[in-house]
Amino acid sequence: MDIAEFRSSGHRLIDWVADYLEHADRYPVMPDIQPGELSAKLPELAPDRGESMDAIFEDFQRLIMPAVTHWNHPRFFAYFPANHSGPSILAELLSAALGVNAMVWQSCPAATELEQVVMGWLARLLDLPARMTGVIQDTASTATLCALLCARERTTGFRYKASGPAALEGSGPLVVYASSEAHSSVIKGARIAGFGTDGVHQVAVDADRGMDPADLARRIRADRAAGLRPCCVCATVGTTSSTAIDPVAAIGQVAAAEDLWLHVDAALAGSAAILPEMRWILDGIELADSFVFNPHKWLLTNFDCSAYFTAHPRVLTRTFSILPEYLKTEHDEQAVNFRDWGIQLGRRFRALKLWFVLRSYGAEGLRALIRSHLDMATGFAAWVDQSQDFERLAPVPLQTICFRYNPDKESAQSLSEAKLNELNQALLAAINRSGVAFLTHTSLEGRTCLRLSIGQASTRPEHVEQVEQALMALRPR
Amino acid sequence: MDIAEFRSSGHRLIDWVADYLEHADRYPVMPDIQPGELSAKLPELAPDRGESMDAIFEDFQRLIMPAVTHWNHPRFFAYFPANHSGPSILAELLSAALGVNAMVWQSCPAATELEQVVMGWLARLLDLPARMTGVIQDTASTATLCALLCARERTTGFRYKASGPAALEGSGPLVVYASSEAHSSVIKGARIAGFGTDGVHQVAVDADRGMDPADLARRIRADRAAGLRPCCVCATVGTTSSTAIDPVAAIGQVAAAEDLWLHVDAALAGSAAILPEMRWILDGIELADSFVFNPHKWLLTNFDCSAYFTAHPRVLTRTFSILPEYLKTEHDEQAVNFRDWGIQLGRRFRALKLWFVLRSYGAEGLRALIRSHLDMATGFAAWVDQSQDFERLAPVPLQTICFRYNPDKESAQSLSEAKLNELNQALLAAINRSGVAFLTHTSLEGRTCLRLSIGQASTRPEHVEQVEQALMALRPR
Repeated sequence: MDIAEFRSSGHRLIDWVADYLEHADRYPVMPDIQPGELSAKLPELAPDRGESMDAIFEDFQRLIMPAVTHWNHPRFFAYFPANHSGPSILAELLSAALGVNAMVWQSCPAATELEQVVMGWLARLLDLPARMTGVIQDTASTATLCALLCARERTTGFRYKASGPAALEGSGPLVVYASSEAHSSVIKGARIAGFGTDGVHQVAVDADRGMDPADLARRIRADRAAGLRPCCVCATVGTTSSTAIDPVAAIGQVAAAEDLWLHVDAALAGSAAILPEMRWILDGIELADSFVFNPHKWLLTNFDCSAYFTAHPRVLTRTFSILPEYLKTEHDEQAVNFRDWGIQLGRRFRALKLWFVLRSYGAEGLRALIRSHLDMATGFAAWVDQSQDFERLAPVPLQTICFRYNPDKESAQSLSEAKLNELNQALLAAINRSGVAFLTHTSLEGRTCLRLSIGQASTRPEHVEQVEQALMALRPR
Repeated sequence: MDIAEFRSSGHRLIDWVADYLEHADRYPVMPDIQPGELSAKLPELAPDRGESMDAIFEDFQRLIMPAVTHWNHPRFFAYFPANHSGPSILAELLSAALGVNAMVWQSCPAATELEQVVMGWLARLLDLPARMTGVIQDTASTATLCALLCARERTTGFRYKASGPAALEGSGPLVVYASSEAHSSVIKGARIAGFGTDGVHQVAVDADRGMDPADLARRIRADRAAGLRPCCVCATVGTTSSTAIDPVAAIGQVAAAEDLWLHVDAALAGSAAILPEMRWILDGIELADSFVFNPHKWLLTNFDCSAYFTAHPRVLTRTFSILPEYLKTEHDEQAVNFRDWGIQLGRRFRALKLWFVLRSYGAEGLRALIRSHLDMATGFAAWVDQSQDFERLAPVPLQTICFRYNPDKESAQSLSEAKLNELNQALLAAINRSGVAFLTHTSLEGRTCLRLSIGQASTRPEHVEQVEQALMALRPR
């Protein structure tokens, strides 16, 4: 591809993207496709001879687009949304064009320094403690793994990275605490880091599904008495199932008293803390040793961009640093080398998109967007509460509503839980197959519920109302 | 930012990118900047009010660009290059615009299925064994960590992920083998996965710095006799210092006889195996349990895109799978969910750029590019060999030349090694400060050498000749 073809194709693609962003609602949210259908249409071998960008882009529209789930669609309410924005997409274009690897300062000073600056901006927007330093990770899964590794190393005096399990000789196995509602990445990370599934002890939750700090304290004491070695507690601000909020301040006091590493996972919810009226969700964050939230979820920044903050950058770099001759530079004493701040050596220039987004929207623009999502969630929760056919199954502190179809909610003779689960699974499938909206489900105390998770940049109150209409039209009779 | 501003800014940026790609050689390869210089020019707080894209893009050109190291520059010869191309950049733009999370099939069927298809294309291009299945990881560091975790789990019957170090009770500690020239990510990954630095045993290398299989066999036997538990061997095809090539076939025979997991790290070199005349570097790959190479290094695909192949996909998924209720889908039996194939839950739509690149260039176009790099390396090596002032310190099987300034190379009274090291460090700094080229260094048996690593898409023989001229002009007298 020569420069002339790049230029003409680039202009064509920009127009296509602009149209797509403007009219994503013309697509069904979920594609009507079965596993294997796309693969069957593609050749088994790469072509020998190069093809024109026109031919490739034609196939992109003809073959790929009908198999895309539209995360940009204003009626995408599944999982936790991952929103983005024009400035973020344009910054990704520039970052791809520069093609730098931000592993060390020298390999792209702009990438390293802009990352320090924008992570400082985020820290101030969230009113994080001054002792916290930020670094961009790819995902919260990776960030939580980093936290678990730091906890493991601090607890063992950095002997685990040197000697592995031999570092534990003479002491019991390490234990991580998280609530039964914590994200699966805590257990996944604990398995990778060598705690094992057995090394993750589930803490009880209260009626709103937030962690019970008294139960945490009891378990730590009991584990110590049994010869185990409590190491880390992972608190969740905004659990994946129902956006429950663990009480960070109370948990932090237990962690501090027991000398445990406190990691706070606010992957989705953290963005809401830029609102003064929502900053309470991070009360107690000054007691945290590490903290993660994802601008790629709810702060208009393209996936992937996970903001990880640590109160102990030297623990982080001591956990990960390794310096072969071929990576030494003349600035290793004066400059930060983010190579030592995570799992991967290679790093993309992700700070650029955060910078574009934060400047293009400004703090007030971002606050307005998040407020609009919270308002829509309040509206939908009220609709559920007032409905004769639907009931809410969890509090709505943020932008996700857990609810289910239950036509007998006000009657004494309600349907069995098994029957309700079956009806709600069927309703979910019907909604998603309709192409009108994409919702996902969870299970709360054995009760299947639908989740409406609001967060796309283009979602407006009418889109939520369209889901209400679809729920009424598709509900079983 | 409304759609009209996105559209007009997008067109402006496409033109800027086209100009940049055409004229990257107008910039100094490395910026003339000191640590902290860019940060000092940026405000400490994000703006409250949004700003125009014109203002942001103006600052990008005025502040960011002078602090960028130009990996696209035709005289970027540092580290291992990470090249890219127009089709890859345009695919990144589309991928950013779609903004999907390819964690499960349902969350974007196109992303999952296209990934399966293009990884199949790569497997055929490299003539990998039919039993190998591919998945895209972010970096080779992550891929190698995945391999180490699979080895750990297979050796312990998947008890380590369940019980941590308790899974080792009654047996000795696990051991990983790699040559003294292996990449630092092996030790980093081994620390993360709980082998510890002590659990990585360095195997001796031969005169060309390839792993000595006889030494590997001896060490395994000695370790077993000492009560240790050999688990995994990491072979390197194209080491980072000097592109030495471990003999995979001979190592694989030892690994098979001893029932060790064989991981092959060909991060840079793997791309060369698409040339029939270079396929020998992967001789023995049919004995490997896992294999990684980076299309983001030498196959014109934007960073990040690391191609990981495994002969045991069920070991991989069993190592990583975790299935909370909120991630279950109705297609979990029929479709691949790449969520279970690596560390992270969230995944970008990276297959799109590989598809664009493979189709736009075709296999023959990619082969021509790699051949041109190999030819330039041969040419530069010959120049070094014929020079009176420079000497080559390692064989050149690929595209990287390790050499040093040594004016007395043909004389009996040569300078001391310490003096030569000092002169070569000074020469490296002078070359890089000149802005003409960017090279990095390594140390081979205590001898500091410069590395000229050829791989940028726009590098032509005249760019290599310009480095020869600069070396002559800047060499100490």
